[in-house]
Amino acid sequence: MGKDKVSFQLKTPKGTKDWEGKDMVIRERIFSSITDVFKRHGAVTLDTPVFELREILAGKYGEDSKLIYDLADQGGEICSLRYDLTVPFARWLAMNPSVQNIKRYHIAKVYRRDQPAMTKGRMREFYQCDFDIAGTYDAMLPDAEILRILYEVFEGLGWDGKYTIKLNHRKILDGIFSVCGVPEEKIRTISSAVDKLDKSPWAEVRREMTEEKGLDGAVADKIGEYVVRKGKGELLAALKEDAILSGNESAKKGLEDMELLFEYLEAYGVLGQISFDLSLARGLDYYTGLIYEVITEGSAPQAAEAQKATKAAKKSSGKPQGEDDDRSADPNVGVGSVAAGGRYDNLVGMFSGKAQIPCVGISFGIERIFSITKARMEAQKTAASVRLNEIDVFVMAFGGKGFTGLLKERMSIAKTLWDAGIKAELAYKVKPKLPQQFKSAEIGGVPFAVILGEDEQAQGKCKIKELGLPEGHPEKDGIVVDLANLVPEVKKRLADKTGIDGVTGGNLVPEVKKRLADKTGIDGVTGGINGL
Amino acid sequence: MGKDKVSFQLKTPKGTKDWEGKDMVIRERIFSSITDVFKRHGAVTLDTPVFELREILAGKYGEDSKLIYDLADQGGEICSLRYDLTVPFARWLAMNPSVQNIKRYHIAKVYRRDQPAMTKGRMREFYQCDFDIAGTYDAMLPDAEILRILYEVFEGLGWDGKYTIKLNHRKILDGIFSVCGVPEEKIRTISSAVDKLDKSPWAEVRREMTEEKGLDGAVADKIGEYVVRKGKGELLAALKEDAILSGNESAKKGLEDMELLFEYLEAYGVLGQISFDLSLARGLDYYTGLIYEVITEGSAPQAAEAQKATKAAKKSSGKPQGEDDDRSADPNVGVGSVAAGGRYDNLVGMFSGKAQIPCVGISFGIERIFSITKARMEAQKTAASVRLNEIDVFVMAFGGKGFTGLLKERMSIAKTLWDAGIKAELAYKVKPKLPQQFKSAEIGGVPFAVILGEDEQAQGKCKIKELGLPEGHPEKDGIVVDLANLVPEVKKRLADKTGIDGVTGGNLVPEVKKRLADKTGIDGVTGGINGL
Repeated sequence: MGKDKVSFQLKTPKGTKDWEGKDMVIRERIFSSITDVFKRHGAVTLDTPVFELREILAGKYGEDSKLIYDLADQGGEICSLRYDLTVPFARWLAMNPSVQNIKRYHIAKVYRRDQPAMTKGRMREFYQCDFDIAGTYDAMLPDAEILRILYEVFEGLGWDGKYTIKLNHRKILDGIFSVCGVPEEKIRTISSAVDKLDKSPWAEVRREMTEEKGLDGAVADKIGEYVVRKGKGELLAALKEDAILSGNESAKKGLEDMELLFEYLEAYGVLGQISFDLSLARGLDYYTGLIYEVITEGSAPQAAEAQKATKAAKKSSGKPQGEDDDRSADPNVGVGSVAAGGRYDNLVGMFSGKAQIPCVGISFGIERIFSITKARMEAQKTAASVRLNEIDVFVMAFGGKGFTGLLKERMSIAKTLWDAGIKAELAYKVKPKLPQQFKSAEIGGVPFAVILGEDEQAQGKCKIKELGLPEGHPEKDGIVVDLANLVPEVKKRLADKTGIDGVTGGNLVPEVKKRLADKTGIDGVTGGINGL
Repeated sequence: MGKDKVSFQLKTPKGTKDWEGKDMVIRERIFSSITDVFKRHGAVTLDTPVFELREILAGKYGEDSKLIYDLADQGGEICSLRYDLTVPFARWLAMNPSVQNIKRYHIAKVYRRDQPAMTKGRMREFYQCDFDIAGTYDAMLPDAEILRILYEVFEGLGWDGKYTIKLNHRKILDGIFSVCGVPEEKIRTISSAVDKLDKSPWAEVRREMTEEKGLDGAVADKIGEYVVRKGKGELLAALKEDAILSGNESAKKGLEDMELLFEYLEAYGVLGQISFDLSLARGLDYYTGLIYEVITEGSAPQAAEAQKATKAAKKSSGKPQGEDDDRSADPNVGVGSVAAGGRYDNLVGMFSGKAQIPCVGISFGIERIFSITKARMEAQKTAASVRLNEIDVFVMAFGGKGFTGLLKERMSIAKTLWDAGIKAELAYKVKPKLPQQFKSAEIGGVPFAVILGEDEQAQGKCKIKELGLPEGHPEKDGIVVDLANLVPEVKKRLADKTGIDGVTGGNLVPEVKKRLADKTGIDGVTGGINGL
């Protein structure tokens, strides 16, 4: 409790960490890959303050409001760190009534004063990556595009179909509860119990419904018959033929939505990843329609691990951790969910007081996606080759006795390369030793060296050497070029190395990756960051 | 003082704002342009938490510590929002002793509970954009590269030489104070007075030195003879010939550094932007060597405006606002400085307790650079053409009586385009009207439409139409293509529009801009975001 320690604590605050090195490079690539998808669908980005007036956040997160970080009262307004990106977005929409529709994305950190579990990736400061479509449109069209975006994001990350998009609809769920005989006032709490079916067996969930929440056993059993069902079109067809269910007004509306959605998902080529799963309920109250969550098969063992841990945590904390979060697949949830969201048509009205703007959105759990991506790279042995920087050319010099170091000549060459937009560096030493310069280049994974010797220098020449060429390669020892031709000669070799005319290599930007994918016939969608 | 208001305040906290629309697009381009330069010089990025343990920040900012935002004590550690990016970087270096050298950049928000002045861009939450080189190297080599980076950043932003890099050296300043007879214990406070020479006339600064700070008038007059001097090599030569000054150990060391630096800046082609200015002192105590600050001529009227405002603010707050910040050209400084920094060799040791890591760095004042860039764009009438999103193709349909809307056909085309990595959208309407679709595309500035009619559709064809073509253009009415050829036909037209084979247009990524620059013979450095 904040004891006054005299000794100096050299650490980051509990539940936070520094991002550095290869982790940072990999995370940046993931952000870049996801952002590409968002832009492909016409999204713009929005940047809101890291803290909000406390009253903006009040009453939005139920009992999890206790996890909100408050700023100290230093006079003036009372503020809190944002808990998610959805409430600030809804606040912004309400403040800007001229904006009646928008596709916006927001990648930023959010803050929850939860018990951190770093090894499981549950942090107090963590990134969310949100995409939302706000506006009044024909039914299920934005919803279908959100699911298409989910597909493109995970294909872009190279997950190659190894994930499942679980779907359900709040109106269908409410209809089910209603026709099974759940009293109106118990619908949300019974819905929360259903939400645990991905982690607990039905017997356990039934016990919670009946013993803890006082539901009639026969009603619970009826619910049990519904919520174990999952499938695709055939499940939808079966539910439509269920006269009792489709006689319920809410369920009928939900089923109509789902029917449209399935048609649209087929047109968008996403149906293969879908599981219509009646056990999916999602924690938060504000969903009003379609809800979804992405789980990945690849992370199944991790999920099982997290499942055990989550159960243990629940026992010790006495609170249901699965309900910690809003619609997001943040690290506080775990259990295999890497993205989640749904439709929330009434949230903006909580701020505007009158005008509603229907919204549907998705939140990607970046820390979890990062862990899975990194684990895959390590399994594929591609992580080792991730470079920290993007330098393409190391400018070196060498000489015999009385060697001056050719410092200004090296600087002049670096200047020429920088002027041409080429990523280059040189040793910060007046008289560097050649082996040390090679070692620096090697450690950095730099593909090319430009080497200045006193003799070549006197003739207005230098050497370009591609590093790491095999024995017997014609340019193994490098080639001598006129200094006047240095830039085109370097660009030519960089281009040859990457196969793209005139674009320098190193870590390719996604746009270039896409072009590479086009050239090789690989689908532009999956070409995202396959090189990882 | 946090009155309990019943009415709901729909606003962002004082001194913060939402970034949206064109401002956000322009700011993102500035970040991208600056990041390109950093990467060209081999920088890696680091991400530290938004809050630090309070004791990490304690004792680093002198009297400005009162501007630090504290988190509420909710149990556990006592934390504060970061005040700059330099202290977290030094803390990280001290925590990671295996890192003995690094070029790191960090673009992130920092927090100061100052009196905000939104119109002058002085915010409580604002971005800093820092680049630092840490490591033990031969003298002035990293320092020269930092100044080269300054040059590339502002050239990359299209400022075309219209800025001055003011240089000075703490050791020379200290030598001057010493040979003029300033008592050791008054050196820092007299240095602070000198720092105000960019805003106040000498008479005013002299008055502060003598009346407020008790300096002997004759000593002040001697200082006055030095600190009004500015120039380049000839000033350096004159100072070296000043036997009294160059007899001072500190000044001698500083002059040697400057001599090396001038040679290196010449090799790097930066000398033209430099002004060696003995009145530059910079606020913070931790600088140990070279210091610098960038002012821009283009912003002179604004600078004068800010100057007046700053003076007024000083009077009302009673504290010298010019000393608010650390080395950074943040909006709290104003007065024309758009970037600033220097060498700080002892800061890491404040955390590590023993091992020092010499550092030199620069901080760009993003809000100010943004304001100048946006003002320039507005003057050049290029701001109006900034698109919010990057959509290249709007997929449309039209038909006569009984028109179905061709929704799934439009979806299928959008899917095909997305699969190929092309940025595309469609109206979220089952039966959209053609004029409305054109209007949506026009509002978004979308360059191409793919138009489906029922007749073309039946023949497996569609129309590609470039929007905004002049009368008489051969493709003014669009051309009909086979659906099977849609992707290559669209890509071809996007390429023609941008002049680059195979790369889609819209808002070009910097890499592509650079290639464009290469093709047109424009210097790769200045090719950054000239299109702005």
